[in-house]
Amino acid sequence: MAERVVLAYSGGLDTSVGIGWLKDATGKDVVALAIDVGQGGEDMDAIRQRALDCGAVESVVVDAKEEYANDYLVPAIKANALYQKRYPLVSALSRPLIAKHLVATARELGADTVAHGCTGKGNDQVRFEAAVAALAPELSSVAPVRDFALTRDKAIVYAQEHNLPIEQSKKSPYSIDQNVWGRAVETGFLEDPWNAPIEDLYTYSKDPATPREATEVTITFTEGVPTAIDGTPVTPLQAVQLLNTLAGDQGIGRIDIVEDRLVGIKSREVYESPAGLTLITAHEELENLTVERDVARYKRGVEAEWANLVYDGLWFSGLKRSLDAFIDETQRYVSGDVRLTLHAGTPTVTGRRSGQSLYDFDLATYDTGDTFDQSLAKGFIELWSLPSKISARRDAAQ
Amino acid sequence: MAERVVLAYSGGLDTSVGIGWLKDATGKDVVALAIDVGQGGEDMDAIRQRALDCGAVESVVVDAKEEYANDYLVPAIKANALYQKRYPLVSALSRPLIAKHLVATARELGADTVAHGCTGKGNDQVRFEAAVAALAPELSSVAPVRDFALTRDKAIVYAQEHNLPIEQSKKSPYSIDQNVWGRAVETGFLEDPWNAPIEDLYTYSKDPATPREATEVTITFTEGVPTAIDGTPVTPLQAVQLLNTLAGDQGIGRIDIVEDRLVGIKSREVYESPAGLTLITAHEELENLTVERDVARYKRGVEAEWANLVYDGLWFSGLKRSLDAFIDETQRYVSGDVRLTLHAGTPTVTGRRSGQSLYDFDLATYDTGDTFDQSLAKGFIELWSLPSKISARRDAAQ
Amino acid sequence: MAERVVLAYSGGLDTSVGIGWLKDATGKDVVALAIDVGQGGEDMDAIRQRALDCGAVESVVVDAKEEYANDYLVPAIKANALYQKRYPLVSALSRPLIAKHLVATARELGADTVAHGCTGKGNDQVRFEAAVAALAPELSSVAPVRDFALTRDKAIVYAQEHNLPIEQSKKSPYSIDQNVWGRAVETGFLEDPWNAPIEDLYTYSKDPATPREATEVTITFTEGVPTAIDGTPVTPLQAVQLLNTLAGDQGIGRIDIVEDRLVGIKSREVYESPAGLTLITAHEELENLTVERDVARYKRGVEAEWANLVYDGLWFSGLKRSLDAFIDETQRYVSGDVRLTLHAGTPTVTGRRSGQSLYDFDLATYDTGDTFDQSLAKGFIELWSLPSKISARRDAAQ
Amino acid sequence: MAERVVLAYSGGLDTSVGIGWLKDATGKDVVALAIDVGQGGEDMDAIRQRALDCGAVESVVVDAKEEYANDYLVPAIKANALYQKRYPLVSALSRPLIAKHLVATARELGADTVAHGCTGKGNDQVRFEAAVAALAPELSSVAPVRDFALTRDKAIVYAQEHNLPIEQSKKSPYSIDQNVWGRAVETGFLEDPWNAPIEDLYTYSKDPATPREATEVTITFTEGVPTAIDGTPVTPLQAVQLLNTLAGDQGIGRIDIVEDRLVGIKSREVYESPAGLTLITAHEELENLTVERDVARYKRGVEAEWANLVYDGLWFSGLKRSLDAFIDETQRYVSGDVRLTLHAGTPTVTGRRSGQSLYDFDLATYDTGDTFDQSLAKGFIELWSLPSKISARRDAAQ
Repeated sequence: MAERVVLAYSGGLDTSVGIGWLKDATGKDVVALAIDVGQGGEDMDAIRQRALDCGAVESVVVDAKEEYANDYLVPAIKANALYQKRYPLVSALSRPLIAKHLVATARELGADTVAHGCTGKGNDQVRFEAAVAALAPELSSVAPVRDFALTRDKAIVYAQEHNLPIEQSKKSPYSIDQNVWGRAVETGFLEDPWNAPIEDLYTYSKDPATPREATEVTITFTEGVPTAIDGTPVTPLQAVQLLNTLAGDQGIGRIDIVEDRLVGIKSREVYESPAGLTLITAHEELENLTVERDVARYKRGVEAEWANLVYDGLWFSGLKRSLDAFIDETQRYVSGDVRLTLHAGTPTVTGRRSGQSLYDFDLATYDTGDTFDQSLAKGFIELWSLPSKISARRDAAQ
Repeated sequence: MAERVVLAYSGGLDTSVGIGWLKDATGKDVVALAIDVGQGGEDMDAIRQRALDCGAVESVVVDAKEEYANDYLVPAIKANALYQKRYPLVSALSRPLIAKHLVATARELGADTVAHGCTGKGNDQVRFEAAVAALAPELSSVAPVRDFALTRDKAIVYAQEHNLPIEQSKKSPYSIDQNVWGRAVETGFLEDPWNAPIEDLYTYSKDPATPREATEVTITFTEGVPTAIDGTPVTPLQAVQLLNTLAGDQGIGRIDIVEDRLVGIKSREVYESPAGLTLITAHEELENLTVERDVARYKRGVEAEWANLVYDGLWFSGLKRSLDAFIDETQRYVSGDVRLTLHAGTPTVTGRRSGQSLYDFDLATYDTGDTFDQSLAKGFIELWSLPSKISARRDAAQ
Repeated sequence: MAERVVLAYSGGLDTSVGIGWLKDATGKDVVALAIDVGQGGEDMDAIRQRALDCGAVESVVVDAKEEYANDYLVPAIKANALYQKRYPLVSALSRPLIAKHLVATARELGADTVAHGCTGKGNDQVRFEAAVAALAPELSSVAPVRDFALTRDKAIVYAQEHNLPIEQSKKSPYSIDQNVWGRAVETGFLEDPWNAPIEDLYTYSKDPATPREATEVTITFTEGVPTAIDGTPVTPLQAVQLLNTLAGDQGIGRIDIVEDRLVGIKSREVYESPAGLTLITAHEELENLTVERDVARYKRGVEAEWANLVYDGLWFSGLKRSLDAFIDETQRYVSGDVRLTLHAGTPTVTGRRSGQSLYDFDLATYDTGDTFDQSLAKGFIELWSLPSKISARRDAAQ
Repeated sequence: MAERVVLAYSGGLDTSVGIGWLKDATGKDVVALAIDVGQGGEDMDAIRQRALDCGAVESVVVDAKEEYANDYLVPAIKANALYQKRYPLVSALSRPLIAKHLVATARELGADTVAHGCTGKGNDQVRFEAAVAALAPELSSVAPVRDFALTRDKAIVYAQEHNLPIEQSKKSPYSIDQNVWGRAVETGFLEDPWNAPIEDLYTYSKDPATPREATEVTITFTEGVPTAIDGTPVTPLQAVQLLNTLAGDQGIGRIDIVEDRLVGIKSREVYESPAGLTLITAHEELENLTVERDVARYKRGVEAEWANLVYDGLWFSGLKRSLDAFIDETQRYVSGDVRLTLHAGTPTVTGRRSGQSLYDFDLATYDTGDTFDQSLAKGFIELWSLPSKISARRDAAQ
């Protein structure tokens, strides 16, 4: 049996041409692996067949949507994961899952190499290869676009010469990565960060400027995990899918930022994540109700580190595991309901309640029934201020 | 001359009655000090006169709006200061300024005590007294409402008995603190965090749900400070005032959170800060364009600490000074323009540009002219992944 | 049955007199609880009897040495817990354990109050009462020395008047707290931080300046826990006891610092912790061998927070639990041997080895067999330096 | 004029042979630059001449000892800089200084390239090249040993064939880097981290096990900078040189750790830094006396980040500058005297005093004159414990 390489296959031009290029460049048989992470679009069977038509010796399709929601999106929700405070890690979360399946398939089918379609200046190449290194240090990684200088123009010529079944007629000006957690869009005019995005970029969300009636929704969390929408039990995947519709219809989830890539450059990115932003907004506010102040303050630093790590491709790292242990412990009481108004691009929390609430009405109220002993404040303030006071005396003495 | 106490005077019921209570309880003459931090409402002269009518031996009014904007709001903008990621520190920023003037007036007029109208379960008592302790450790602080159990009911009776010129006819159900940076509103029904806010709570912002045309605005920053709006030079105060109108008219700036108070309880708070949220949104995105990745990542932790410190009343502390030194250094290049669409409650950045930009089109573009050497990535990824890889080998050997 | 209060009883003057004072002041029956945390000195039975002789209705002794080592010292070792980088939390670790037993005894014997012998300006009062509040919010705490102004002079008079069986003849000039993890010593002349400690202060350690032969010892850890000394299996308690002897005999474990107390003042403290410093030194170096760089770097911040929290009396807090979850996850591979030379006050690591080592000889060596591909470095350095390089170009263009 | 490359020249085998190799490989004229950072050993003039003898077109020697002490060691002292809590950054501090002079010389003498003698698996290559990229993005960097696979064996052959004036007779088994801040030693048998260092490795410090009289020394700092030793004013360089003798004679400054390199591997390192460890020990304790608790706690995290950054070669980075701004602000009051006993490998602080002390005897003392109002503690503890208490009530209700 010839040596084998497993290619993460999307069905698009680059990876379709990549099958032949890999075979030519490495002499190895190419196994195509297509992962369904809720990217929608084409039928997965059609993709599977196309890989064979492009020369793959085997073509495997895996429906990983539930796994993606349970094992990747749920931790991101618990971590309120927003890179640079804004980006819900749409691509960064799917790459380690795909890498995990690349490794599993490589081991199952006896391949010694895995491959992906990334370029050499993005984050995703790092995420794929760092994940593979962490899961299967014995495997090699190869990236035809980067390592063999497979440009788009060359790919088109190759596809035509080899009569590959790739339609280039309706060529999109957009470079898109999407999955159930959101979409990332790149295109030429966005490379000037002064240019505004246009409506045509978006498909997960409708124009927030269009007047429409607001939607009210109540999300129930159980230990940090979304478990019901408007009282109806849901799996995490169902929660994400349903909120993509509800929030997307209200124009929620658009992000437009200048982003710090791991490879050292800044890039301009446009994303959509209707369910992502809605779930994190709701989850954060439920934490405000149920998590102790000191835990909440420290967790914010942990969240930022978590987001940086995952953005930087270190999903399968020791630090990620240890941060998850911290985060999981904080979620013990994050159960309850959050009511939101979804409207005009914004998910607004209007109510929150929990059987594990730390909000104590009798201590908080200014009305009759107040049990807070105000006389305690005096001593507290004196000792709280003491370091500043001693320091002020020192300064005065200079 | 009798001993004197300087009271932070708002013109409202509590501090008006407080004048007499303080005199009765301490035997000291009461000096009223009213600070204009842009709270609007009554004429400051009327407030000044009322203090005298209520028994103050002297009544002083200070217009501190420019000082507030320059010395308190500008640092908050540079720090992207949002407590719990949401609250722009509306009351927390004004208290140290008022305390500073209390101290200055006490020293000028020979008082040995300062006083304020706070209760014993809020944050503001700590902010006032911690600031006074840090500026003038020799002064005492007293709070009639807290220390002499001056309840609202007793205050009303006292005002009537002493015929104080306080109108209680149009008694508002709301407890409000406001200044040019925003408003804080408390009222009974909000003490159930499941109850939604009602439109009547808000005055700085119009209903975001009302359909209207979007507003486009371009904010220019110079080293982190807002210096022009739509090309017209502005002072920080003018920037805040103008954006309060522009953003407030679009329903921007509303915040509804369960908040962790310094005194150890959770409370439910509703705020408005149209200019605050707009300026911070714009400033953060200009930082994305002009600040190095590692600085930006570390600064996020510094920002959270800054917000916690200021929330906790430690404005005049050594740590605050040292964090400011860090932040000021980061702002050296934060100059440029940010264009926003203000609409339906949301300030959306649509463009950013800077002569100090770190965005390098030639490195970022995927088009012709790309100068990024993709072959460098291979070595980078290998060393980046090496710790995970070594660790994976260790795990495999177990 | 009369109401009851459970007093943390040491057998010394303050708490012996406290029995009567508490009875007088509260009218409640006093239960004495003496906890053996390895403080040595008097026989626990003598202490038990003395409490009865001083008026306690019940007197309970608990041997908590194993519990202390397993549940308090082991987490401290895993956390490399040194407050201000120096102090191994000798008193801070024992207080939550004692508080836990106070609560258990109060619940068992039907008391509604607990009491301790601390003053009002130290840390230990906070540690006791914060722990009690976190374990049994329904219990009250009282501190006779602080709350009833029971000074030492008054205590001596009271003891004489009531003929309490307390010897004051050999009155020590030292105020001492000690347990198996170490000793804390305070005395008048140390209150000038310019004065040097004298040899007479120390009992756990011999004079490090005395010439003697060095001791070599090998400590084995299993998942962060000391499990053998020189190949002989030990419990954590045995490890601490044995190392107190071995390291104490070499003058190891003395600490002399100006310390930041929780109550806002600085104090000068002298401690001894021979086993503590030795175990933490060894444990840190084993982590250097077995823990990934990124985990190690982040853990250092977690360790500092852990030490601050425990110092500040928040042992039974949500944040402590979450930090422990992080730390426990990092200890999975911290197994192996550390060889130390104990001599002249210093524990010096001279060797470390582990079946879980991340040290890879083939990658590290400069000799034949080197498997590190040096050509990878070029790409790594280019991308690592890219943000600085872009920033330098920007600066040059200004 | 031919193109030129400036080589960081040590006078040793690798860089001497590197002159010819660089000329051969690049066709450029080689300028040798030797920097005196207090490494001692050979006369700098002899080194200068040797470069010419080996084929350099120009040979420059710079005495940078004062600059090194003032601009690199002083910031390290202020930052208490110890990588992995142990390593005082001996090599990491000298590399950016050398890179700065490489850049200055390249610009002065019209070179377009700089070169250094590092291998491809260490940290120093990154430090050199990252510093050059940050100072002069237009310059290229080259490393003959790494980029042209110049092994030691090849270098010896080349030196013999070309009759270069390098003595290889007394070939040392040690690979050494040293400067006034310390020494780094690598050698074959240390590559097994279980092997103990031997006495022969050390030259800056005498055997700490040899019995000798202790040395007492008092170090005066002014705003964080050492300015006098035993009352005699010194420059930072003089302080370091004098303490290298005083502390080195007592066996102080030896470090033996497994270290996390930037390039992703662990290595075993042995260092000496007598003055470094002594100055940092003294400086830390003076901070304990003069810096507010909250500043001190936060600064510990800043210090760790600073050490990581400098270790990682990012001396000339934006984050380093911003951290320095923070640190400088904290040093405003770090003035005073620290008395140490230097003995048997350990610098022990025995006294500290300062005109800027925050230690308040009247608040700290337990004797007559105590001004601390103990009654304040009750209120402080209640509010301090309140979050834990509310959380405990919540738990009890589950």
